[in-house]
Amino acid sequence: MSSSLKMNRKEMIAFLEQEFPQYLGEVSQVEEDYSLLRLPVDTSHLRPGGTVSGPTMMALADVALYVALLSKIGPVALAVTTDFTCHFLNKPKSDKALMAKARLLKQGKRLIIGEVELYSEGDTETLVAHVVASYSVPPAK
Amino acid sequence: MSSSLKMNRKEMIAFLEQEFPQYLGEVSQVEEDYSLLRLPVDTSHLRPGGTVSGPTMMALADVALYVALLSKIGPVALAVTTDFTCHFLNKPKSDKALMAKARLLKQGKRLIIGEVELYSEGDTETLVAHVVASYSVPPAK
Amino acid sequence: MSSSLKMNRKEMIAFLEQEFPQYLGEVSQVEEDYSLLRLPVDTSHLRPGGTVSGPTMMALADVALYVALLSKIGPVALAVTTDFTCHFLNKPKSDKALMAKARLLKQGKRLIIGEVELYSEGDTETLVAHVVASYSVPPAK
Amino acid sequence: MSSSLKMNRKEMIAFLEQEFPQYLGEVSQVEEDYSLLRLPVDTSHLRPGGTVSGPTMMALADVALYVALLSKIGPVALAVTTDFTCHFLNKPKSDKALMAKARLLKQGKRLIIGEVELYSEGDTETLVAHVVASYSVPPAK
Repeated sequence: MSSSLKMNRKEMIAFLEQEFPQYLGEVSQVEEDYSLLRLPVDTSHLRPGGTVSGPTMMALADVALYVALLSKIGPVALAVTTDFTCHFLNKPKSDKALMAKARLLKQGKRLIIGEVELYSEGDTETLVAHVVASYSVPPAK
Repeated sequence: MSSSLKMNRKEMIAFLEQEFPQYLGEVSQVEEDYSLLRLPVDTSHLRPGGTVSGPTMMALADVALYVALLSKIGPVALAVTTDFTCHFLNKPKSDKALMAKARLLKQGKRLIIGEVELYSEGDTETLVAHVVASYSVPPAK
Repeated sequence: MSSSLKMNRKEMIAFLEQEFPQYLGEVSQVEEDYSLLRLPVDTSHLRPGGTVSGPTMMALADVALYVALLSKIGPVALAVTTDFTCHFLNKPKSDKALMAKARLLKQGKRLIIGEVELYSEGDTETLVAHVVASYSVPPAK
Repeated sequence: MSSSLKMNRKEMIAFLEQEFPQYLGEVSQVEEDYSLLRLPVDTSHLRPGGTVSGPTMMALADVALYVALLSKIGPVALAVTTDFTCHFLNKPKSDKALMAKARLLKQGKRLIIGEVELYSEGDTETLVAHVVASYSVPPAK
């Protein structure tokens, strides 16, 4: 069975802890088609009304896409976000973990574009936010 | 079998021809989960390099989402686009029809948000563009 | 001299400390045409390479637009972000405060849209990021 | 007097007529800081309600940014749009020309990002739409 993955979940976690020790969330899955991040919600992420803040959702989506990207191109610390568009759709549940499922839309040599669906754990049908973002990657040597 | 569709394909075409006679493309499918538009590409859509122009792709995506939206809320001519984000991913084939498959991400009372995947007919795996857009709808009476 | 401002800087700070005690940055200016936020950069905002993280920039821009919006409509805690698009342009300086200057593009009854320019303090010519975002506001009573 | 312009208005028009004969609008100004396109509105651009269609506005903004970009890097036919975000703000006047004023936010070696303000001629204060978009440019030789 061939795979296009250059890093598995365990390698991903080791890489992130080395390079981005402050990253948000837990790496739940690193699959061929998608990567899944999970953020146990605590009060520090909440804003008035008992909902997870928008910037927290965007930060988690950014990590999720970064993981999806790294899983395909390998441990390259230099990918940088060039654009990031988020639509906030429904209020996340304050008592459920926030999930971010990322997949690549295009893997180009210079630009990689992906999307992320965010939802409250256990309710994949009700998206709380949707992200599309682009990453500039250094030319392969 | 219940359905959440308020207009089928035939009704949609009749509505568009009445209200937006200049609309781009053909309504191929109006389904529960998505609507599909098809644009036979001719030379008027091409730009140098033999590719479909970006604005043509965005115009088709706009119709596709409008159709997906109308199929759920019924023939309301007054929905207006409020934001529209397109990522151009791969060059479409100049000898294939351009397809735009739209689905709703959220159907709110005031805002409806959806996404569109564009591809060359017969090649659903290679997206040529991806759109997310919001529509403001008048309050139901 | 008439003014369209419904809150000045002092009232804004009091409101934010009451309603969003965890908000990012300092409210530097609340003017007719724009609001200015300032974030003294410390190591908690940095990612490898010594640059401010993208999510930190987006979080600051979100506060800046929220302040610009509140200054025009008054202390309404219920405005929610509906879409948020950020383009990352240049690397911010790690030894300068990050500034976010927000202005409204449209103040509608239901939707308010604005843009934010982010730059390193003292270098307004080199934008580090640009944001456009929409906020849904509850109907006035 | 030095200038960073590599093409003036006359050269721009000659280039567009050669390379993109179907381009939308008229090149009104090509300045250091911005380029201005003008679209005399006729019935073919209108949709029901007597307003210019969203796709027409996006198409004009795309040309305006392309002109602003070419004026800085010279006649390179190969720049391609990679992402395009439009916010629709106010209804344009059906009896006024549509104006699109474009300026660059960043001129990088590989990516050029710019924004466009659209308004009805004679009313620069009321924006009808706002666009941010990125263009990928081939490496200079």
